[in-house]
Amino acid sequence: MKKVLFIILIFFISFSCKNQEEPASKEKVATIKQNAFAIIIHGGAGTILKENLSIEKEKAYKLKLEAAVRTGYAILKNGGTSQQAVVKTIQVMEASPLFNAGKGAVFTHKETNELDASFMDGETLNAGAVAGVMNVKSPIELAVKIMTDSEHVMLSGSGASAFAKEKGLEMVDPSYFYTERRFKSLQRIKNSIKTELNKDDKKAAFYDSDIKNAKFGTVGCVALDKNGNIAAGTSTGGMTNKRWGRIGDAPIIGSGTYANNKTCGVSSTGWGEYFIRSQVAYDISAQMEYKNRSLKEATKDVIQNKLTKLGGTGGVVALDKNGNMSFEFNTAGMYRASMDAQGELIVKIYKE
Amino acid sequence: MKKVLFIILIFFISFSCKNQEEPASKEKVATIKQNAFAIIIHGGAGTILKENLSIEKEKAYKLKLEAAVRTGYAILKNGGTSQQAVVKTIQVMEASPLFNAGKGAVFTHKETNELDASFMDGETLNAGAVAGVMNVKSPIELAVKIMTDSEHVMLSGSGASAFAKEKGLEMVDPSYFYTERRFKSLQRIKNSIKTELNKDDKKAAFYDSDIKNAKFGTVGCVALDKNGNIAAGTSTGGMTNKRWGRIGDAPIIGSGTYANNKTCGVSSTGWGEYFIRSQVAYDISAQMEYKNRSLKEATKDVIQNKLTKLGGTGGVVALDKNGNMSFEFNTAGMYRASMDAQGELIVKIYKE
Repeated sequence: MKKVLFIILIFFISFSCKNQEEPASKEKVATIKQNAFAIIIHGGAGTILKENLSIEKEKAYKLKLEAAVRTGYAILKNGGTSQQAVVKTIQVMEASPLFNAGKGAVFTHKETNELDASFMDGETLNAGAVAGVMNVKSPIELAVKIMTDSEHVMLSGSGASAFAKEKGLEMVDPSYFYTERRFKSLQRIKNSIKTELNKDDKKAAFYDSDIKNAKFGTVGCVALDKNGNIAAGTSTGGMTNKRWGRIGDAPIIGSGTYANNKTCGVSSTGWGEYFIRSQVAYDISAQMEYKNRSLKEATKDVIQNKLTKLGGTGGVVALDKNGNMSFEFNTAGMYRASMDAQGELIVKIYKE
Repeated sequence: MKKVLFIILIFFISFSCKNQEEPASKEKVATIKQNAFAIIIHGGAGTILKENLSIEKEKAYKLKLEAAVRTGYAILKNGGTSQQAVVKTIQVMEASPLFNAGKGAVFTHKETNELDASFMDGETLNAGAVAGVMNVKSPIELAVKIMTDSEHVMLSGSGASAFAKEKGLEMVDPSYFYTERRFKSLQRIKNSIKTELNKDDKKAAFYDSDIKNAKFGTVGCVALDKNGNIAAGTSTGGMTNKRWGRIGDAPIIGSGTYANNKTCGVSSTGWGEYFIRSQVAYDISAQMEYKNRSLKEATKDVIQNKLTKLGGTGGVVALDKNGNMSFEFNTAGMYRASMDAQGELIVKIYKE
């Protein structure tokens, strides 16, 4: 009798502890799919309110988000790599004046467009990033080229442009990035700073646009291909009226972009300074790896709890190795879309 | 009888699980000290071998490391902040031609010195970083100024210099950073590339110095003050013969530098590309926070296991909120020193 009870005791101890160690394991097992593939994108997060967006503009955003996500979906469905899907999808958004990336990038204080991008490959943990290029048509393509064709992870400024040129990437005149809408935004912000300058010289000298209320407009994509490889990429024009060679989170591996086949892929958008201080993209992966959290639990904690407590605003799109996806943001809206292996399409803008 | 056995069962389950959840808790409890303060520094890691270093040079390095660490120790002992200790300690090394930071920085491919630095405050999780400045005497001071006097975390290039000038930081002519020793190193590397270029044009075009065998020479410091605040900072000239506006890990928050009062502070040195891909500094904090690992366990796993598997070389200095300290590196040597609240001094160079 005692022996039987002792065996039961041992059984209960191991069962109970195993359960505590792997709280998310059941969920994971349940969602493993053969040949699962998936793609998720964002076109920026911020105070995007229905009352401020015309029906035409809303439609234009939704159509472009759908066109972008379908581009990557088709690549994945046909057996293409997550890297190809991420690059081609982001290029659709970079080429559109709707988003703050590539054509459509916001203006710096000096009335230039200075572009940042980053890419990470979840299989090799290799990565590429670029900060402050002014004449490279597709910054995301350059980020990948830095990863594949240099020994570096991060290049910047005119040096990065010289590298792009040498590698045969498409170069454009800086005027390619001019859009009247973004130029007017800069002028509005500069005028509002002038007014504020009279009130409080010191503060206004470092005032950087109505940052809290601006739509941030970075674009990003995470994809999982049929071989189980995750890739993530982010591309942006940064912050309107940015000065001093400011670098945000978009080109920072671990903050703006992260991918690891063991856990997940993440692309961030939002108030870059807080995303750097919070290691947003890698923190989601770390919570999954070290705390056994699900993708949903990890993205929720990092954005709604940790980032929010610090005062940061923005969001992420993320997917895990099993094709589970998560949109998570603490702003009024985030331009976003996704498609799963079954071809189910989601395109949304506002909080729901 | 059954009731008693059931109670024993419950007791064993909770005891056994608690033990698994908090493997490091005993160690932590044992080392909590009232008013603990501590400081730990590095002057770079790499293939530093006793047979290659003259007795005079070894002595010079040890004396400078001691002078640096004593500077910060005195500040902490007198009740100064960890921020003050980190800045003043790093400035001793920046002012010395022995280390690859400030005066003594290595040369870029264009024969310039382009300096990077970063700083993080463990109390507020605020941070500042600078990449590619050429005429600011103390890059670590500029990193702190970016944190305290701008809304940004990271500034770069001529924009960062303009910010420094406006804030009244000490500016120097770029020739201030010239040292014959570093200039000769660049020429040696350029010559060896020329030779290699004949063999393999393609590879050599992006060859970046004998990176694997170079002493990296970044400097860094982590301090814990009497108020329990942790601060960490890193300063470097980057990689000899660097091109294309390359940015390494030193100015990347989470890779080169991280500090959080809840866990630890870390400063990295090594092959920057791998440190960016591995999120070295933040990963140590994440393992402590999410896996309940001790500082020693976390630094060991991140450097000896994860970084080494990826192919990266280098090391970290780190300290936790209780004043425990860790030197961890996978290279032949790391210039390093530390002092604890009892005034115990350690100064070392080689692996022991």
